[in-house]
Amino acid sequence: MASASEYEFIPPGTRFHALPSPFPMKRGGALHGARVAYETWGTLAPDAGNAVLILTGLSPDAHAASGPHDPEPGWWEPMLGPGKPIDTSRWFVICVNALGSCKGSTGPASLDPATGDLYRLSFPELSIEDVADAAASVVRGLGIDRLACVVGNSMGGMTALGLLLRHPGIARSHVNISGSARALPFSIAVRSLQREAIRLDPNWNGGSYDHDTWPESGMRIARKLGVITYRSALEWDGRFGRVRLDQSSPFANGGGEEDPFGLEFQVESYLEGHARRFVRRYDPNCYLYLSRSMDWFDAAEYGNGDVLAGLATIRIERALAIGANTDILFPVQQQQEVAEGLARGGADAGFVGMDSPQGHDAFLVDFARFGPAVRDFLDRL
Amino acid sequence: MASASEYEFIPPGTRFHALPSPFPMKRGGALHGARVAYETWGTLAPDAGNAVLILTGLSPDAHAASGPHDPEPGWWEPMLGPGKPIDTSRWFVICVNALGSCKGSTGPASLDPATGDLYRLSFPELSIEDVADAAASVVRGLGIDRLACVVGNSMGGMTALGLLLRHPGIARSHVNISGSARALPFSIAVRSLQREAIRLDPNWNGGSYDHDTWPESGMRIARKLGVITYRSALEWDGRFGRVRLDQSSPFANGGGEEDPFGLEFQVESYLEGHARRFVRRYDPNCYLYLSRSMDWFDAAEYGNGDVLAGLATIRIERALAIGANTDILFPVQQQQEVAEGLARGGADAGFVGMDSPQGHDAFLVDFARFGPAVRDFLDRL
Repeated sequence: MASASEYEFIPPGTRFHALPSPFPMKRGGALHGARVAYETWGTLAPDAGNAVLILTGLSPDAHAASGPHDPEPGWWEPMLGPGKPIDTSRWFVICVNALGSCKGSTGPASLDPATGDLYRLSFPELSIEDVADAAASVVRGLGIDRLACVVGNSMGGMTALGLLLRHPGIARSHVNISGSARALPFSIAVRSLQREAIRLDPNWNGGSYDHDTWPESGMRIARKLGVITYRSALEWDGRFGRVRLDQSSPFANGGGEEDPFGLEFQVESYLEGHARRFVRRYDPNCYLYLSRSMDWFDAAEYGNGDVLAGLATIRIERALAIGANTDILFPVQQQQEVAEGLARGGADAGFVGMDSPQGHDAFLVDFARFGPAVRDFLDRL
Repeated sequence: MASASEYEFIPPGTRFHALPSPFPMKRGGALHGARVAYETWGTLAPDAGNAVLILTGLSPDAHAASGPHDPEPGWWEPMLGPGKPIDTSRWFVICVNALGSCKGSTGPASLDPATGDLYRLSFPELSIEDVADAAASVVRGLGIDRLACVVGNSMGGMTALGLLLRHPGIARSHVNISGSARALPFSIAVRSLQREAIRLDPNWNGGSYDHDTWPESGMRIARKLGVITYRSALEWDGRFGRVRLDQSSPFANGGGEEDPFGLEFQVESYLEGHARRFVRRYDPNCYLYLSRSMDWFDAAEYGNGDVLAGLATIRIERALAIGANTDILFPVQQQQEVAEGLARGGADAGFVGMDSPQGHDAFLVDFARFGPAVRDFLDRL
């Protein structure tokens, strides 16, 4: 297995699963010597019947929560652990970092063993189904025939559907959180523009940047546009209103002589903080690949062009699709569609649109609503 | 009066009004020898009681409709003309190009008579109130004491409120279309990001670009982000769905070897077309100034920090505030707020949220809904 490149950002408790080599890709080509990063929590039952798989959005790593292997809080800390909604005293939980990411799984920022150089744009075209196939390989590698549940958030909701479509019987149940069965034009437009901002940055240079020539401007714009579409106007009206930046803020320079168009409102510094935390901590080429994979995903491919027919080919016992009514990127109608399609396939499938003000990101912050929903579903398995 | 610079885009039928010199600006400084571009339709009644003023969004020029002075169709052609909703056989209609624009009114792309060079960033800080004061000067210059109605769209809705707040008695009535009484954080965030994209383009160069070094990348991103927020996901689901570009399209190159992240979906080519039509036809510095002026506008300044109290200082007889329920940039709650505030000030004020799928742009395309609403209001004056 290849060692990490200097462009990968891998939490210390990460484990690695070697993918079969070659690992064929849906749109053509194959990976050689590729790996998938993952973490686990809890204990696998002797019959391997208590396994829950978590599939993530575009940017998270496999470190969903703290554990004996890594005491740092994870990105879904309040959801996962002993006594928490995904109760690790009952469940053996696996979180997989997406293939194509830069958080430990092989992707464009990884070293190509054939050349010893970074893949960059020589990485084959990546589809959500490849991400799903890689996750399935981890599950099988851990000796699990059938997951008790696969939980997918955002892009991970697409990945979960890809997994269920391509690996019949791999799970008894599914929780789809702020996900969708296909990309629709508003989200395609947003992602296309994010990719264009990166590609227009002269430093991107056809994918051949380094730490000294990083496409910071493009990544800033992509991230800020992401944050704008991850939250909601309703939340921001209450949270920021028209409050100005305190002049002691390091970002405050609005209207000053140095930068007449600088930051002035709190909402602008909020975006700025998000951008600064992200720009140098996610590989731009990986961002392009995973972003594009979402545009391509369409469960209708499995149903002769009909998305509900595609979903209805999935055989699971129970399902829950939830989201936030304020989500503009993966609107709740898309979770409703997931539930409807899975029900058509015979699942006992429910849908709940939560009154969360936080938009697409609600599952990362509104634990008062999303926690009980997930807990109740898992408790009744 | 200064002649036009090579960075201004002025329709052939444009007329000019010379502003008082100096013309003081709300946030400080003054303009000298400045002018406002406008067009008119119809005939002013002897008592000057039939005048209707149209105030525009950020990008339109004063050529709202064809007329004897310019037979080319205007940007609001179906709304304005003999027998149309704004019936020029009854009304004398004036459309004013915003101060700060590059469509004939003095702005950052104009020549500063003091230096003979372009203003660029030496143009004083621009507020919506300055745009309103300039429009008021045109109205007075035409011999009109009291408009029958001021109609404002989008940014023009803010300008109209600025006009009514600062020029008591200037209008008997007001139609506010997809406007607002103050900028809220979602729209501030979007505009801030548009400005940042322009400013991050190396070609912007602190405002000192020319035709050979135009900040095309920044303007592309700003425009595409604009179009994304001007329409609605609902409209695009029906209009574009997941339809791919025909390979004969000049934009089609998705997945090809030349550009692995090129355009593939129809919605992407729609954005591309909008960008290409805009990028070289609007001055980037003017864009920055007018964009910022919207962030600053807040009718609460006229009501001790309370927006409704600010609006309630306006004395008009009748008002109508309308918008589209799918507008995410100027959501209908903001038009409702305008109506509520004007009613509190004593106006007979109504609000209608239209079931238009076209979002913020609905007033530019959904004439079946917006036409009758405006016609009925004007007919009853």
